[in-house]
Amino acid sequence: MFADDARGHVLEHLMYNSIPYPSDPSQEVRLPVAQLQPVVEQLLVKHSMFLFDAKVAAARLLEADLYGVPSHGTALLCRILNAIDCGDIDPRGRVLTLTDAPCFATLDASRAIGSVAATKGAELAIAKAKEHGVGVVAMGNGQTLGAAEVYVRLMAAAGVLGICCTSTGGATVSAPGSRAGAVGNCAFAYAVPLQGRVPLVFDSACGTESWGKLALLQRYGLPLPEGILFDSQQAPVTQFESAVAMLPAGGPLGFGLSMLCSILAGPLCNGWMPIHKKRRTDAEDSQHFFLALDPARFCDVDKFNRELQKTLDEIVALPAVNPADPVRIPGVRGAACYEDNLQQGIPLHRSIAEEIKARALKKKVAVEW
Amino acid sequence: MFADDARGHVLEHLMYNSIPYPSDPSQEVRLPVAQLQPVVEQLLVKHSMFLFDAKVAAARLLEADLYGVPSHGTALLCRILNAIDCGDIDPRGRVLTLTDAPCFATLDASRAIGSVAATKGAELAIAKAKEHGVGVVAMGNGQTLGAAEVYVRLMAAAGVLGICCTSTGGATVSAPGSRAGAVGNCAFAYAVPLQGRVPLVFDSACGTESWGKLALLQRYGLPLPEGILFDSQQAPVTQFESAVAMLPAGGPLGFGLSMLCSILAGPLCNGWMPIHKKRRTDAEDSQHFFLALDPARFCDVDKFNRELQKTLDEIVALPAVNPADPVRIPGVRGAACYEDNLQQGIPLHRSIAEEIKARALKKKVAVEW
Repeated sequence: MFADDARGHVLEHLMYNSIPYPSDPSQEVRLPVAQLQPVVEQLLVKHSMFLFDAKVAAARLLEADLYGVPSHGTALLCRILNAIDCGDIDPRGRVLTLTDAPCFATLDASRAIGSVAATKGAELAIAKAKEHGVGVVAMGNGQTLGAAEVYVRLMAAAGVLGICCTSTGGATVSAPGSRAGAVGNCAFAYAVPLQGRVPLVFDSACGTESWGKLALLQRYGLPLPEGILFDSQQAPVTQFESAVAMLPAGGPLGFGLSMLCSILAGPLCNGWMPIHKKRRTDAEDSQHFFLALDPARFCDVDKFNRELQKTLDEIVALPAVNPADPVRIPGVRGAACYEDNLQQGIPLHRSIAEEIKARALKKKVAVEW
Repeated sequence: MFADDARGHVLEHLMYNSIPYPSDPSQEVRLPVAQLQPVVEQLLVKHSMFLFDAKVAAARLLEADLYGVPSHGTALLCRILNAIDCGDIDPRGRVLTLTDAPCFATLDASRAIGSVAATKGAELAIAKAKEHGVGVVAMGNGQTLGAAEVYVRLMAAAGVLGICCTSTGGATVSAPGSRAGAVGNCAFAYAVPLQGRVPLVFDSACGTESWGKLALLQRYGLPLPEGILFDSQQAPVTQFESAVAMLPAGGPLGFGLSMLCSILAGPLCNGWMPIHKKRRTDAEDSQHFFLALDPARFCDVDKFNRELQKTLDEIVALPAVNPADPVRIPGVRGAACYEDNLQQGIPLHRSIAEEIKARALKKKVAVEW
């Protein structure tokens, strides 16, 4: 069923596939939420966070794991603890309001842990959309929020259509015609609430892949994709350490979207463009942009739901190129993954579980693995 | 400087390039704006439009031509006239207000010509953003607006960051894993105002290419790209007539963005999803979604400008894969094209100029070509 010539095959493969997250039970431990979550919370508390903030931060990290985004969940914990230790993240940072207009707000996250600040940003966007139909929140001086999809999931759970983009450090996505970093590998995520079924949830890097996923592939000893990564001399590489730039997803479209996200989650939040960020993401700041729309204010929400649900049913029934791999709707795999991980425990790469355990023991936090 | 193996070459080519618009002086006439614009206006007036609306419609169509989007400019005129003739476009349709909240509005374009209705939509989004910081306009029951970029250019000219997406008829972009149409080949455009220089302007289809560009390639007798188009049996084709679906731009990212645009410029505007549109675009309706943000309400706009301008200067100076083809910023080519076309006349394919001339003569409108 693939195009007949080699070129068509490569082209179609590229058009259809992102690299799946690694999964290898021989390299993993499965940790039940009830074991992992208190350790994450207690480690954060022992790094000076208030318990109520630590609970929010742990919830967001574990949600990323549960929904099948292991690169942006608990895997980030030790990096966050290091950033607290060296003073880049303020464990008691509060979200400050700079402007609070009816439909938008500008916030200063004052270097608070990203997951806590971004939760407040998403909640404020929800509240504004519920009251005024539209809510826009631009948050500067923040820190890495983890997986963008968990925040748009919060928005969809509240009944609003949520969009989130976030900056991710320096310029690591090239412009068409170049192999040097021009814009950020921003995350772009949205979720659409659907009555009586799991929301439509989309979360993507604007580069060919997220750096977090590539780092995880490396941890599993898997090869990195050829032809998309470049070193500081613009030569193609497949080593994570020497890669400083990657191609945009879909060429001009990925570049254009990355440029927009770099501006919205950047200078619009009083931050810098990625090309002017030269240090680690934790050492500089990260900006987040949230847009919430309440469909009930725009249209007949029952008709909106029926129309979307019917469409999604029809799309999954479309003929698949490979009948063993049917068409999937963004968000459905995540929901199944959530149930699976809740039942069987969160699969963590053994090295990540060991790193967390070592930090926990050092702080006299009991671990059961 | 390209990746060494064939696979890398194909991959990188695809990542970097969209097909350029055709240009072949031997097949074209150059029509000065002063010749073309009155003919377009008069033809619209002779099809029952009020002159003030005809002037707006003609301005938007010619702007598309001037900015180098010939597939979505005057090339659409005869199709618009046909749609008026058969009653699909109401030449005196007015834009009706369904909801007018401070930061958003829902509008019914009542089958008015798309360029006139979309201009009003963009203007309302601008006005709301100027007053409240944010303006969202969802417009249903509309008609094809032409080139999305001309509306975000209006927004940038008014000093606001503008985003526009529009639906484009049926489901013609496939989902990852399928070659059947799932979502619309929506246009996604944005513009960012920059003090003292041309705005940053991005306009893209969510599919690999816009159908309009493919139609224009065909008119110039140029081959259509291999491997991206499929017929109703999901077999690869390169004939425009038999193509009913195409791959999304950048696979999952293009599909995800197309799904979002299909919802925003669809059910959110009380319209249908593309998969439920089975007739011609003119016969069904098109929806438009506008979002305007006033940067001055979100951040220090001088710093915002300096930061963006410095960034754009640095991006164009990045090393290019092909030194003869330096890195380009979206919007710059369009601005140069505008000046060029204003000086030398708008290049129209001879067959399009002839079609317009025939319509004009039939309606006793004088033409000078």
